[in-house]
Amino acid sequence: VIDDLAEARQRDANDPCGQFRARFSLPEDVVYLDGNSLGALPVATKAVLDDAVARQWGRDLVTSWNRNGWMDVPQRIGDRIASLIGAKPGEVIVTDSVSINIFKLLTALIRLRPGRRTILSEAGNFPTDAYVASGVADMLGLNLRLAERDGVLAALDDDCVALLLTHVHYRTGARFDMAAVNAAAVERGIPVIWDLSHSVGAIPLNLHEMGSEYAVGCGYKYLNGGPGAPGFVYVAGSKQAVLRPALQGWMGHHAPFDFTDEFFPGQGMQRFRTGTPPILSMLALESGIAAFDGVDMAALWRKSVELFTYFATLMTKNCPEFRLVTPADPMQRGSHISFAHRDGWPINNALIARGVIGDYRHPDILRFGLSPLYTGFADVWRAVDALADIMRSGEWRRPEFSVQSAVT
Amino acid sequence: VIDDLAEARQRDANDPCGQFRARFSLPEDVVYLDGNSLGALPVATKAVLDDAVARQWGRDLVTSWNRNGWMDVPQRIGDRIASLIGAKPGEVIVTDSVSINIFKLLTALIRLRPGRRTILSEAGNFPTDAYVASGVADMLGLNLRLAERDGVLAALDDDCVALLLTHVHYRTGARFDMAAVNAAAVERGIPVIWDLSHSVGAIPLNLHEMGSEYAVGCGYKYLNGGPGAPGFVYVAGSKQAVLRPALQGWMGHHAPFDFTDEFFPGQGMQRFRTGTPPILSMLALESGIAAFDGVDMAALWRKSVELFTYFATLMTKNCPEFRLVTPADPMQRGSHISFAHRDGWPINNALIARGVIGDYRHPDILRFGLSPLYTGFADVWRAVDALADIMRSGEWRRPEFSVQSAVT
Repeated sequence: VIDDLAEARQRDANDPCGQFRARFSLPEDVVYLDGNSLGALPVATKAVLDDAVARQWGRDLVTSWNRNGWMDVPQRIGDRIASLIGAKPGEVIVTDSVSINIFKLLTALIRLRPGRRTILSEAGNFPTDAYVASGVADMLGLNLRLAERDGVLAALDDDCVALLLTHVHYRTGARFDMAAVNAAAVERGIPVIWDLSHSVGAIPLNLHEMGSEYAVGCGYKYLNGGPGAPGFVYVAGSKQAVLRPALQGWMGHHAPFDFTDEFFPGQGMQRFRTGTPPILSMLALESGIAAFDGVDMAALWRKSVELFTYFATLMTKNCPEFRLVTPADPMQRGSHISFAHRDGWPINNALIARGVIGDYRHPDILRFGLSPLYTGFADVWRAVDALADIMRSGEWRRPEFSVQSAVT
Repeated sequence: VIDDLAEARQRDANDPCGQFRARFSLPEDVVYLDGNSLGALPVATKAVLDDAVARQWGRDLVTSWNRNGWMDVPQRIGDRIASLIGAKPGEVIVTDSVSINIFKLLTALIRLRPGRRTILSEAGNFPTDAYVASGVADMLGLNLRLAERDGVLAALDDDCVALLLTHVHYRTGARFDMAAVNAAAVERGIPVIWDLSHSVGAIPLNLHEMGSEYAVGCGYKYLNGGPGAPGFVYVAGSKQAVLRPALQGWMGHHAPFDFTDEFFPGQGMQRFRTGTPPILSMLALESGIAAFDGVDMAALWRKSVELFTYFATLMTKNCPEFRLVTPADPMQRGSHISFAHRDGWPINNALIARGVIGDYRHPDILRFGLSPLYTGFADVWRAVDALADIMRSGEWRRPEFSVQSAVT
């Protein structure tokens, strides 16, 4: 025993956010620390989907587009997300995926600044962001420049048509100073697109206060929307009217059922819609977001900070061979904790075999998500206990842990 | 009584495809003739989703990407669709929506023909096709030309970079002669993108035999995938390697979990993937397609033809004031039947109030989908009986039927 499990349990008992764990269906024999990759299943989601399938689809059939409000689902869920990120109603819409929403924002912003030729992003950013930006740049004959993280602000120049950054880094958990980046970019007339995939639902966000005008985010991580849940896109109200994404689908038309040959963009965020929305995945996402009802995001973040500190402290004491790569300062990070170890791959597989599910990120990162709605202190204790035991016993050297393929 | 319901029931009893209706959960008090807009709920889908939610997501959590094959779902379902449309394994992938998949094909094809400046499509094509093409044209400084239906072939010229057509027209049900169009376009080196939304799952398709190289299609109509189910994209094997869609997401990378900064397109159709696939909506689609297991598409089409003839005959006799707008020749149409009437809007609303669900398309079309997996002759009889009664009684003139908004 590396520490006192009873003490971890006592922390859970005293946790003001502890009550929310009951909103999730978690397997008893698993310590789940990968909610930053795939959020856990909310208990309520089964009934939501049963109703969506049996009553709305099965019984009401196509009339559900009106009768059950399917047409408005992307905006309705968008408004719920808006309340989590300090945006106003009508500023967020749920549609497509993070990748596709980045594409829409980039093409719309580039159109407004025809003289500028460089999209700027971070080297080592989450790949889809760089891939989308590179596809846009190739198509339009622009340049994509990937600056090192600490050189991003210095790379802003008058050729820059947009800056695309992930708020919290998917590997290290490092967080950009959103307000400072916005201020530096705005000074040069450069719009910033924030990818909130690893921050929304985990850390308090107030996009307006931070001066953020454009953002996208993911529904299946801290928002608990289910595997591949739709993403969202945010545009500050004052910036919406002039944007024309290159991706124009019929649901983005101002009156889709007029079936005109010519495209007239919908009001506000409606123009960011494209095809018919995947209603089942959308309603599962809404149920995931409903798990935040009545939750104080500041209290949730305090819990995340405590989980992080507890995790780091236990690791220092029991697994000193792991190097913490996530910034210790809470203001400089998100809600996961990452450690480097050159044998991270087999070690992570050994953890999974023991029912401790975090994930591995190339080349040497063990990443553990702290989802404060349901992650408890006893989870953290169990994870470190298992890890210490795996290292002590050399269990991770078993051949099957080096060859096994795991995608998380 | 306009005809003999018992006779319609006898037709159903003799129908070799009649057994398949039991694969669907249809409300008893409804005559559902809108499967070309939203396919009915397969009985098996509830169990598929229960398993996807409770076991795969809830219990196996993020390990499901491997353990339950989530990574391969888009290709696995694509292969099932391939077998319905005369394509080979590896030629179809399920991803995103029809709109977005058209965008990918157009941008990839335009890239290969830099000298050509005109995208050609049909005036009055399903709007999303024209909207996507117009967005692409605006972005790249190309022209979008919408030719009248009977002038499409004559409009093919050496400036044409791609021809985008919907195989079966969403309003009239008229079908293009796929082989003839392909032959005419290929002669001029013009690739044809076929939108199969209103044909896949309804009429026998053999894309290779017809000389079709590029296609997209919809999952929520005759494939019964549920509201907003993902779409698919087809590229003939020999054409795949040179295509580079402008939309590059991480799931389209040749090794997504290498997390490289640079994008290397995946093998074959993998490069048409973008973000993380919406697994719940995907598995519902797979269940919808499974409803075709063991079904002879030729027999299904024969039934569709019989339903159409029966519908048209009953209408001529009992509702002569409606003008059939769908071509009578089976080779020139899909699997829905459309009638024009200047009061189509209130008449359709009166039908819906009686539980007969077809739909209305501006400006004067009543459209009835014949989904031969579950539509029966008695359904057709009941629909025409209700329509005749509505016309005879003048019930459709009730004020609520003129103002009510119905989106189908």
